[in-house]
Amino acid sequence: MQTIERMISSSPNKSTADKKALAECIEACFACQQACVACADACLGESQIDMLKRCIRQNLDCADICGATGRVLSRQLEGDAQVLRAQLEACVRSVATCGVECRHHASKHEHCKVCAEACQRCEDTCRRMLQSNGGARV
Amino acid sequence: MQTIERMISSSPNKSTADKKALAECIEACFACQQACVACADACLGESQIDMLKRCIRQNLDCADICGATGRVLSRQLEGDAQVLRAQLEACVRSVATCGVECRHHASKHEHCKVCAEACQRCEDTCRRMLQSNGGARV
Amino acid sequence: MQTIERMISSSPNKSTADKKALAECIEACFACQQACVACADACLGESQIDMLKRCIRQNLDCADICGATGRVLSRQLEGDAQVLRAQLEACVRSVATCGVECRHHASKHEHCKVCAEACQRCEDTCRRMLQSNGGARV
Amino acid sequence: MQTIERMISSSPNKSTADKKALAECIEACFACQQACVACADACLGESQIDMLKRCIRQNLDCADICGATGRVLSRQLEGDAQVLRAQLEACVRSVATCGVECRHHASKHEHCKVCAEACQRCEDTCRRMLQSNGGARV
Repeated sequence: MQTIERMISSSPNKSTADKKALAECIEACFACQQACVACADACLGESQIDMLKRCIRQNLDCADICGATGRVLSRQLEGDAQVLRAQLEACVRSVATCGVECRHHASKHEHCKVCAEACQRCEDTCRRMLQSNGGARV
Repeated sequence: MQTIERMISSSPNKSTADKKALAECIEACFACQQACVACADACLGESQIDMLKRCIRQNLDCADICGATGRVLSRQLEGDAQVLRAQLEACVRSVATCGVECRHHASKHEHCKVCAEACQRCEDTCRRMLQSNGGARV
Repeated sequence: MQTIERMISSSPNKSTADKKALAECIEACFACQQACVACADACLGESQIDMLKRCIRQNLDCADICGATGRVLSRQLEGDAQVLRAQLEACVRSVATCGVECRHHASKHEHCKVCAEACQRCEDTCRRMLQSNGGARV
Repeated sequence: MQTIERMISSSPNKSTADKKALAECIEACFACQQACVACADACLGESQIDMLKRCIRQNLDCADICGATGRVLSRQLEGDAQVLRAQLEACVRSVATCGVECRHHASKHEHCKVCAEACQRCEDTCRRMLQSNGGARV
């Protein structure tokens, strides 16, 4: 997080976004990507894999969407508010869906529980970005 | 494209999507990602780079968003219609924005012209996916 | 492919690479990424999934590595020959490993057969890039 | 980091890798990806951009390569030691090259300084993975 905040602060590109909220959201997106990649892998190793196929699929989509969102958020020059908003909304939708699925398995599988927490944090920080200034940073 | 269609057809996962339309959309997403990565690189090599900074930024975002969308579309098992729809909408927004910017420079820079065409094709195929069955494949 | 060749030709950045071979390699990397994402998804839907776990894992790694390689190859400005070479070597290693695994299942699963072909083509084009001029384009 | 360690520990997949070292390496890869995306964006906003074109290019390649490496490292099931090793080597090459370039601009641009630190940490953790057991986790 500290590195992310330093990168934001040292950029010559002006942004109206709250720096701390932005850094938290970027961090949460990349952390959720990692958790989803790892959760898909862990689910694949469980014996009752038939119960976990929807979880794996949502993990894989969520990883890709969070990764793209984290990269888009990491740029501050000449951004487009509508593109940012649409991608944040897709990310919220994906982490919410994946989080619900992971919570179904949280009592049985610790990796699903940890992943659900990462999804929740990503959802919260993305929603905060959407609420403040419409997610606009331009 | 032929490979993409063969992958869709040989999957055990049932999908309500039109296979040809889906294959075209997947192909267009990855082609647009490639064009955007290459256009950002080409713009960076142009002498009048100040005019092209917004183009580079939109290229970079568009590449990430198209890449994630192409991957999500490539999966057919246990997908979530709302996640797919939201990501397709973000993709449409991104390629439309990037395409407009690229067209501004199309008369001067052939790479922007080619990239604008890739954006247009990606937009068209994503809109078709959204219209047919709400983008739902589950 | 045509789009990729047009992007290469219209770039102001000089490259010593053979344009046709480069375009083929870029195209093969992205096609292999797509095939691997789709093959992992298809394998996950098969009933005898226990036989396919190694295939899914190799698919997922291969998709990520091919995707990164395709993006690196799509840039021509100020590239570093050693970085390019190392990433091409990682890509060759990954598609070779994934291809062997997919071929084990090719007689049973058409998607593994198609994916093995995509891996083979990616391996061939990457090896050609490595042989010509050490993969150096700078 | 804590989340990454929890994901590793809760996975049913056995790994011979040191968990703490693996978690540090995964974290460093994703942090370096983020720093490189942000550094390319910041460089693009600087007035003396001609001096920074090589930095931007290396940033973009490094972001893609670190991202792929972080994802590959996040999986523990049925991995291939040679694939992992080759991708770690490509990552070391990329962060070393990008780090040298960023350090050239570190006295002028704080974002290059922060990015060089992220590259260094990524290089150190990847080298540690390569040394211990040849990077083998299977």
